[in-house]
Amino acid sequence: MDNPKNKVTVKVPGTSANCGPGFDCLGLAATIYNELEMTLLEDERLIIESSGDGAETIPTDDKNIVWKSARMVLERSDNAEKFKGAIIRMENHIPMSRGLGSSAAAIVAGLTAANAIVGTPFNRNEILKFATEIEGHPDNVAPAIFGGFTVSTVDKGVVQTFSFTPKIKLKLVVAVPDFPLSTRVARQVLPKSVPLKDAVFNVGRAAMLVAALIEGKERFLSTAFDDALHQPYRTKLVPGMQEVFSAAKKSGALGVALSGAGPCLIAFSAANKRIENNIAVEMVQTFKKHDVQANALILDPDTRGAVVNF
Amino acid sequence: MDNPKNKVTVKVPGTSANCGPGFDCLGLAATIYNELEMTLLEDERLIIESSGDGAETIPTDDKNIVWKSARMVLERSDNAEKFKGAIIRMENHIPMSRGLGSSAAAIVAGLTAANAIVGTPFNRNEILKFATEIEGHPDNVAPAIFGGFTVSTVDKGVVQTFSFTPKIKLKLVVAVPDFPLSTRVARQVLPKSVPLKDAVFNVGRAAMLVAALIEGKERFLSTAFDDALHQPYRTKLVPGMQEVFSAAKKSGALGVALSGAGPCLIAFSAANKRIENNIAVEMVQTFKKHDVQANALILDPDTRGAVVNF
Repeated sequence: MDNPKNKVTVKVPGTSANCGPGFDCLGLAATIYNELEMTLLEDERLIIESSGDGAETIPTDDKNIVWKSARMVLERSDNAEKFKGAIIRMENHIPMSRGLGSSAAAIVAGLTAANAIVGTPFNRNEILKFATEIEGHPDNVAPAIFGGFTVSTVDKGVVQTFSFTPKIKLKLVVAVPDFPLSTRVARQVLPKSVPLKDAVFNVGRAAMLVAALIEGKERFLSTAFDDALHQPYRTKLVPGMQEVFSAAKKSGALGVALSGAGPCLIAFSAANKRIENNIAVEMVQTFKKHDVQANALILDPDTRGAVVNF
Repeated sequence: MDNPKNKVTVKVPGTSANCGPGFDCLGLAATIYNELEMTLLEDERLIIESSGDGAETIPTDDKNIVWKSARMVLERSDNAEKFKGAIIRMENHIPMSRGLGSSAAAIVAGLTAANAIVGTPFNRNEILKFATEIEGHPDNVAPAIFGGFTVSTVDKGVVQTFSFTPKIKLKLVVAVPDFPLSTRVARQVLPKSVPLKDAVFNVGRAAMLVAALIEGKERFLSTAFDDALHQPYRTKLVPGMQEVFSAAKKSGALGVALSGAGPCLIAFSAANKRIENNIAVEMVQTFKKHDVQANALILDPDTRGAVVNF
């Protein structure tokens, strides 16, 4: 019953989507992980245990997103009859509903674990397609699968992701507020139409950001993290957002952004302990002035994406 | 009077702006050139001679854009009193008002020539700033100055350009219709606002295009030249545009685009004589079906930008 061949562990990184100008297109994996142990069962038992951030809120029945994702792989690989149940143990370090890709990590963990147990019938591009179907857009699931910095496009349902490791040694300083923000709400505040000049603003900056990171040219980053397409509309959802951005920049950040749909704010810094720490302290203190309790994480880019161990 | 120190020749490449998704941001220099010989004079004579494309329409007085550009450099370098006139001889190979940057080439030629004669007080980034002031946006002047493929952004009047040589050996197949199209008219048909999803479409593709060209990954180009921000509105200005695009793609083009504000259409092909020729023939013939006479150019990316010779 507890056949070791039916058991894997998967480690999936947290991710910061958008990275400023790349709304729904750019993403970056970070060195903060959710770990999952999955045992597929031939009978219908479903045992889900979790520890860590938000453990008490995670569904332990059919609605569990890890199990839903695993079942997608089982169904599409004709294994749904063979494996009807599972024992799932999660240890979550990625803060939930904060804009660090906790939901994408759960989806990728479920897909990747089930795929490994049934003999890896699907490659990473296929896992990306499944994950995008579930999540609706590829900007978090892509870096969770591939690691690194990712550029993703969707064309008539076909997802393409280009992943690379930035040549600039970046540190990610993340201020994590103590309140969650639903992606649904953060999407509702966005307009259906935007000024053409704002579109041009972001097109140029997203292209510049990718070029500068691939080629390792820090001096081209000065305005490359700026955004006109989503952050201006979301400012009201995160008290003190612009002030935290200013504080981080004053402390030496190369660029600042709302992480995904927020409320986490992320500052990109060149690797330098003193500067990173300064940025972290300033971001947390500025949030405090706006009555927001926050803690800071200082992370590196993750370069491996989801990793399976038997 | 005809002091050889006061005389230079400058060779400036034609350029294709936008490259599909990069409206007002991306550009590419091509191996087609305008050549300029400029002699600055202490007296007020102004002699302007031109040969080649559109020679008969080029102003030979104060309104001449080469001379206007040259004077900007003379004024800003405090040489306007020293040099009041000029002998300017142009040999133009870049088709005029067709979307291949003939106006940008004239501006860059004038700025660069005058700058060289007065001892190069301005570097290329400063020339870029001046050229953008005159032209209004940097997408053609940037590749005309730096060569290669360029990503440009403007932030409160400060222009930044990142230039690189694509790792994929690209050929540029350009179909040049026999009618001009003014950039002003081509801008008038654009809406002030666009759907947010169209903005996202272009942001992802512009970032993907730049990433794929820098890293030399041809397989990521399949949808990277596509555009939703300007070409759909300009289709009506170029009879047969979508059909020419389809014909070029069927003949093996990696991507197709309106060159700048048109009416030239450009197909990007991997270097292969048979395929390049096929694309050229098919584009011209398809234009003909829509009663448009066109000729084809098969060009390489230019990697040097404006070059000065004394």
